[in-house]
Order: sequence, then structure tokens, then C-alpha cells
Amino acid sequence: MALAAPHLTGIRGLSEEDITLILETSVQFKEVLQRPIKKVPALRDYTIANLFFENSTRTRLSFELAQKRLSADTISFTTASSSVKKGETLLDTVRNILAMKVDMVVIRHQNSGVPHWLSGKIKARIINAGDGIQEHPTQALLDAFTLLQRFGSLRGLRVAIVGDIAHSRVAKSNLDLLVRMGAQVRLFGPSIFMPRGIEQAFSVGKPSPHITEALAWADAVMMLRVQLERMDTRYFTPSEYQTLYGLHRAIYEASPNKPVILHPGPINRGVELSSDMADLEGKSLILDQVENGVAVRMAVMYLLGTKGALQQPAPMY
Amino acid sequence: MALAAPHLTGIRGLSEEDITLILETSVQFKEVLQRPIKKVPALRDYTIANLFFENSTRTRLSFELAQKRLSADTISFTTASSSVKKGETLLDTVRNILAMKVDMVVIRHQNSGVPHWLSGKIKARIINAGDGIQEHPTQALLDAFTLLQRFGSLRGLRVAIVGDIAHSRVAKSNLDLLVRMGAQVRLFGPSIFMPRGIEQAFSVGKPSPHITEALAWADAVMMLRVQLERMDTRYFTPSEYQTLYGLHRAIYEASPNKPVILHPGPINRGVELSSDMADLEGKSLILDQVENGVAVRMAVMYLLGTKGALQQPAPMY
Amino acid sequence: MALAAPHLTGIRGLSEEDITLILETSVQFKEVLQRPIKKVPALRDYTIANLFFENSTRTRLSFELAQKRLSADTISFTTASSSVKKGETLLDTVRNILAMKVDMVVIRHQNSGVPHWLSGKIKARIINAGDGIQEHPTQALLDAFTLLQRFGSLRGLRVAIVGDIAHSRVAKSNLDLLVRMGAQVRLFGPSIFMPRGIEQAFSVGKPSPHITEALAWADAVMMLRVQLERMDTRYFTPSEYQTLYGLHRAIYEASPNKPVILHPGPINRGVELSSDMADLEGKSLILDQVENGVAVRMAVMYLLGTKGALQQPAPMY
Repeated sequence: MALAAPHLTGIRGLSEEDITLILETSVQFKEVLQRPIKKVPALRDYTIANLFFENSTRTRLSFELAQKRLSADTISFTTASSSVKKGETLLDTVRNILAMKVDMVVIRHQNSGVPHWLSGKIKARIINAGDGIQEHPTQALLDAFTLLQRFGSLRGLRVAIVGDIAHSRVAKSNLDLLVRMGAQVRLFGPSIFMPRGIEQAFSVGKPSPHITEALAWADAVMMLRVQLERMDTRYFTPSEYQTLYGLHRAIYEASPNKPVILHPGPINRGVELSSDMADLEGKSLILDQVENGVAVRMAVMYLLGTKGALQQPAPMY
Repeated sequence: MALAAPHLTGIRGLSEEDITLILETSVQFKEVLQRPIKKVPALRDYTIANLFFENSTRTRLSFELAQKRLSADTISFTTASSSVKKGETLLDTVRNILAMKVDMVVIRHQNSGVPHWLSGKIKARIINAGDGIQEHPTQALLDAFTLLQRFGSLRGLRVAIVGDIAHSRVAKSNLDLLVRMGAQVRLFGPSIFMPRGIEQAFSVGKPSPHITEALAWADAVMMLRVQLERMDTRYFTPSEYQTLYGLHRAIYEASPNKPVILHPGPINRGVELSSDMADLEGKSLILDQVENGVAVRMAVMYLLGTKGALQQPAPMY
Repeated sequence: MALAAPHLTGIRGLSEEDITLILETSVQFKEVLQRPIKKVPALRDYTIANLFFENSTRTRLSFELAQKRLSADTISFTTASSSVKKGETLLDTVRNILAMKVDMVVIRHQNSGVPHWLSGKIKARIINAGDGIQEHPTQALLDAFTLLQRFGSLRGLRVAIVGDIAHSRVAKSNLDLLVRMGAQVRLFGPSIFMPRGIEQAFSVGKPSPHITEALAWADAVMMLRVQLERMDTRYFTPSEYQTLYGLHRAIYEASPNKPVILHPGPINRGVELSSDMADLEGKSLILDQVENGVAVRMAVMYLLGTKGALQQPAPMY
């Protein structure tokens, strides 16, 4: 079996068969990570460049660890120490790095669409590690994998995504993946944070501002990070947000359903999620998400890496 | 033989037997570093995270080299490119990294007590690479190892620590280690830089402001770095400090004893140490300290790494 | 065959035999880079430190990839996260790193002459990755290698270097290398950017401000990067520069000669080089330069690394 997609620029570029293959392969890599020796020689002959035009800790380290455990050679740069400051175009920067015989590029960029656009321009496999407010496909895959490990199936699973949907690439990748794989998804949060037309675009029901409804309905609640730097003084104070839209013990205890809790990190404890909820044993899957992230990224890179050399830029999908 | 301590959060957490074991094991790794192939497969199955919340060159590179020579896989971050800026708590940052199956954490942090506090919270071996003004245990171990290589024994050795004791984690770790291993330690420097009650705490004699006394008495003088950024206009100018408390040729030549000279780096040449003293052949051990640092850190990581998996957070000592 | 030079501090320190040996060895490493497994064990026992006191993307990544493909262990620092900020001298920083048993240092520094000066002070092989406005020898070697791959020989080849010669270390290293290897070199660009006495120093003809002359004469034009941050408001606007001294389609098409186009990067598209010229198929060698850079740097490090240990600092040449 092999991936049909030549790149992972977004969930949008994957078929359901591709998604299933990645999730199944992740099971095998999760098993590798339980072994004393967590390393496999799969991408021993491979060079992977990590290009982070936006700061990141967990995603970058997760990719780097996954690469080491696949035995790939890696080079990394973050904008802090790069020529991007010298006014070079993005395409020139990437082409230069590829000219050094790089087989795969993991890229995070503040502008939506950059990984997809690059995939039509260059001869290397591209993995999107987050682009603007558009997609963060490995996050959605690791979230789905985490739910799958917990519930056995995504079909019919009720997932509530709570928070600033409009500005969240995590929400958008998750929405696309979960709906296509048969989960039921509903959106919750302040109406100003709901993208127009989202109900039609993804056949989710009407968004609701009431998180108590989410708790009464869902098998899993996916709490999104509040962008404090953006919000702060404009719409809510952090404590207003917590009261109106945050998850905390009082409302959780009152829910009959007791859904599992996911969060893509980094958490603002006391804002979208109270500290005891973030750490709620048996219910918080937040650290499982992080652990599974390495396995899922190993699966993605393995599947793209063993497809053979890319002869020319992939057609736009 | 194995270390009793599950972590290296400070010299305070080590028994004298542990200290001895680390120093003896360092001899073996120093021998490894003389070989053409300086690499051993000891931690081949190990993943170590280097978390530097404070800038560092020599300590970070020394740990990274020691890790490579033990064949460990490593991931590193410095605060410059991390999510710490996004307001995540330290514990969340560290837990996330550990969820990626990291076996050992080397941490430097500006706040005193952070490595010790973490060791009660997480399931990975912790090595303190410097915390606030409290401890820098691998520095004290490499200093002791350097003295041991020179003098054969620490017992009865007269060591003068000179400078800003109050703000120096190097001084505190050294004081604890040297006194417990039987050395005689005396403190020298401006009285405003002496912590209250230091004589009682470590059974060292009364501190003295006269560096000439140090030179007349000691087998080894350990010159501390002056924190120029802190001192400058408040207490002394750099040149006043040099005249009153610095080590320079005139007073060194006048001393009958000619003690060896140590400094943890980075040196302010012309402030706490004149340039000719820093480079004094046969007497300056400063580059030996740096060289020995790699061997000592290999010993520490080897000993902690071969104790087997940590099943749960260690009890507070 | 072995290099006579103990270091690569500049083209100035290489004999013509050394240059020839590096270029011939690069052919072999270019072949290695075409293989599925691009790695050789040549420097398996070697530790190389990359010290970048000035920002860099392509040069740093190119060296790092070359090192991985030679199987060397590497440590890297950039000034952003180093003690250099604490006021340590450069020599102390470097000596400290070397005390950790580092065999080779790749250094970029904003001050001219630093790598050469260091080579007289320390016991490790030094490679200059760019110093101030003086030399960038691996760039000149990769440029020569690229021309050699295209034309078969440098002897008699007509090379035009166009732009700000005075501030360009790339130009100076290229001038020295090309003239000595028998190429004909001429300089073009604004007269204020021509170093005084350059004609005598390198036996090149009188510089000319007319790029159309360069196009009519040359087999290869080497377009230098305009330092926008320096120039901008003082001498020309970018668009004035483009009109007067830039390479663009109209003047290129008018030239009978159609020389190949080189550029050391990063390119200011639309200033010294129009976008269509930068990408001109069959004529632009810019990405070949980048690709060849890895092979040439492998050759340099291999040749210096297999000369055996350096017993003492090399004599000044």
C-alpha cells in the first residue's frame, strides 16, 4: 500500500484511503516507540529539511524526534538565524535548500497556502507543519489517531470543537478529517469566532456559544487555544473568556456525559481550560496527543519517503 | 556500582559515595576522549532533551558533545525559538517534551530550584545545568575532577573562592562539594558579596576581602566571574574591582605559594583576572576545566542513564 | 596527494596545486551525492564546530549537510544564543570550544582576518566561511568548480564580475582564484564600488561601469548581491541600480555572446538580476552553484581532515 498523495499539504489533499493508511501505519510506529530501541533504519538514506518560518517548540521537536527515529539526516532552520531577513524570496530560500539534495521539506509558515503553493514549484516532498490560519494536517491526524486509540472508531463519534474556529488551522484540519471519516462534529464558542458559511462548507450543525451544550452532547471536546495576544483587550478579558467559554470543573461535573478532553497545546491554564481539567486523569488526552504525534509523524514521513523519488513538481490538486 | 541519586539536581542531592563514583567514572571517560574514536555506544537507545531557558555557550556545547560521544539521540531548545513566549507554563513545556519519550532532561533555568522541583513532577532523569543563583553541580564536579587530576586528592586541599559568592551558583555547588570531600575552603571578596551566615552554613572560616591573603594561603584559587551587567555603576567600576579584588601578576608574583588558577568562564579579562594570569602556563587550569567538563558530563549521564527506567517521580530529598 | 595548506583561511593561502586538488576531489564527492546513499564514513571520528558570528542560511546549511555526509560529529552555534554577549573575547570562546576536543572549526565572522588570525593561535584546522569584506574561499571554489563543470577548463575563460567589488568577499576570493588559475577576469559596476589599485593588485584590466560591455565580452557573468541595507538612499535607489548596472532580458538578448550567469545568493530579484534572468534555463547556473557547494565543502573538509592531527598552530603564511 502507498499513499496516493505526493505531499501532505493539508487534509484537503488526502483521500479517505490515504487517511486510513496513515492512521494504520501510525499504530505500527506507536509500537516501535514502546521498544527499548525506538529507532528504525527506514529513511537512512533520506535528507529532510525543517523550515520553520514561525516559532514552534512541540511541533518542531516532534518532527525532529520522528526524523531521528527514522534514521533520516536532517537540517533545520528557524527564521531567527536566516537570510530571510536579507530580503530573499521564500521560493529562492527553499530552492536553494533543495539544491543541496534534500528529499523532503517540513515547513511551517505564517501565510496560509504556502506549502501547497510550494508543492507545485519544487521537486521534493512537502509536509505542512502549519500554515497561517489554514491547515495543520499532522495535528488533525494525531488527534484522530488519539480518538481512534480511545474509541476504536471515528464513525458516529461526537466531537465538539470549542473556541476560536475562525483563526484556528487546527480546527479546520480537524473538521475536514473528522467529517470525512464519519464523525459528527459540532462547533462551539463566541459567534464572532465562527467563520461565515462554515455550516455549509463542512455540513456541521449550527454553531452554539454554549459550552454546556457541548459537554452534554459530545464524546470528546477539543478545546482550542485562546490567542491571548490577539484577544485580550478587544473582545474579552481572559477571565471573561474562562467564565463564558472555558472548560472548568463545575460545568464538567454537571455534565452527564463526561467527554474526553483534547487540546493542541500550548495551554493557557485558567483561560480555555482550568488546570484541574487539563490534568484530569482518565479523561484528559492531552499528553497522549503529544506522544502520538511522534508516531503519526513517523508514519507520514515513512509513507511519503518510501514512495520513491519525486520526478517533477506534483500537479495542483 | 550505581548512583544512589536518581537525578543530579544539585551537589546537595549527592552522597559522598555518589560524588566519588562520578569522579572515578570521569577518569575512564577522560581516557575515552584521548582515543582517536571518542565515541562509545553506552546511551545508544537514549533520548536526551536539552532545555536551555537561559543563554549558554560552553555548558550547552559541552553537554551536547558529551551526548554525541555517548551515542545518545538529542533534541535541544533555547527559549529564543520556543512556545515559552506563548505563555505556556514551564511544567507544561517539559511534560510535553517528555511525552515524546525522552529519557533524560538537561535543564538550565534562571529561577533557583526549578530542576529540583521538576524532579518531583516528571518521569525522566533531570540534570541541572545551572539554576538561578543556587547550584551548577556539573561545574563543581568538573572543578573537583580538575583539582583531583592535579593534586591527587581533595582531602586537606586549600581552595580559595574569590568574588561574588552571593550571586554565584558555581561558588555554592563548589563549597558544598569541596567541604564535604574534605577540602579546606575559604571565601574572599567584597563583603557585600558574601551571603549572611555562610560561615555557619558550610563551616568555612570568616570571609576576607584581601585577595593577597588568598594567594598566601591557597593551593588553588577559584576566580569567579564578575557580573559586569549587574555591578558596573552600583558598587565598583571594572577597574576598581580589578585593583581591589582581581588577580594580576604583581600580587601573584609576590605570593610564596603560587596557587593554581581556576575560572568557570566566561572570563572578563582585565577585571577579575588579568590576561597573563588567565593564560599562565603550568598554573592556569582554565582550559583543563573545559576539557574535563565533557568527560565529567559523560560520566554523569552514563551513570544516570544506566540505572534503568525511572518508574515514577523521585521523592523529594 | 594531500593539501599543502593546513587551513582554508582564504584563497590566498592556497597554492595552485592545492586549488587543483580541491577541484578534482570535488568531482568525486559530486558523484557521491548522485548515489542513493549520499554518505561516506570518511570523517567518522571527527568533531567539527560551526561558529557563525554572522547570520547565514545557505552557507551554514551547506557546511552542515557536507559534514553529515562525511559522517562527522558537529556542534554549532550562532551568536544569537551564545556567551559572546557576556563580553568574552573571541579567542576565549574559540579556545573553550576547542578544549572540548574539536578537530576542525568552520567560522564566519563580520571582521576581516579573523580566521587567519585564529589559525596562528589554536590547534585545530580552520575553514573560513566568510570574513568581513575579505574572503569567502569555499564560495570561490564552488564557483570555479561550477565553471569547470560547464566549460571543462578555466584557462582563458572570460569571467566578468559585476557589482560592488569593494565590499564583496565573494569577489575578492574569486578574483584571486580565477586569475591564478588562468582565467581572464574583468570587473564591472559603479566606479565608487571599485577598490583603488585593484587593477595592479590582480592584473585585471581597467574596471568599466558598462554591463553591456561585460555581456559582449564574457563567457560567464558573476552578478554580485547588492547590499540593499547599505546602499539604498545613499548612492542609488534599487530601481536606478537595476537600470544602470543590473542584468535583465533586454540587454542580455542584445548580447551576441549569451554568457552563463552566476550569483552567490541571496538574490535581490529585480535589482542586480531580473527574475527571468535568475531562472534562465540553460544559462543560469545559480542552483548548480548551490548543489556544487556541498560537494566542494565535502572535498575541503575531507582533504583537511585526513591530513592527520595538527600538532601546533600553523605558521602565518
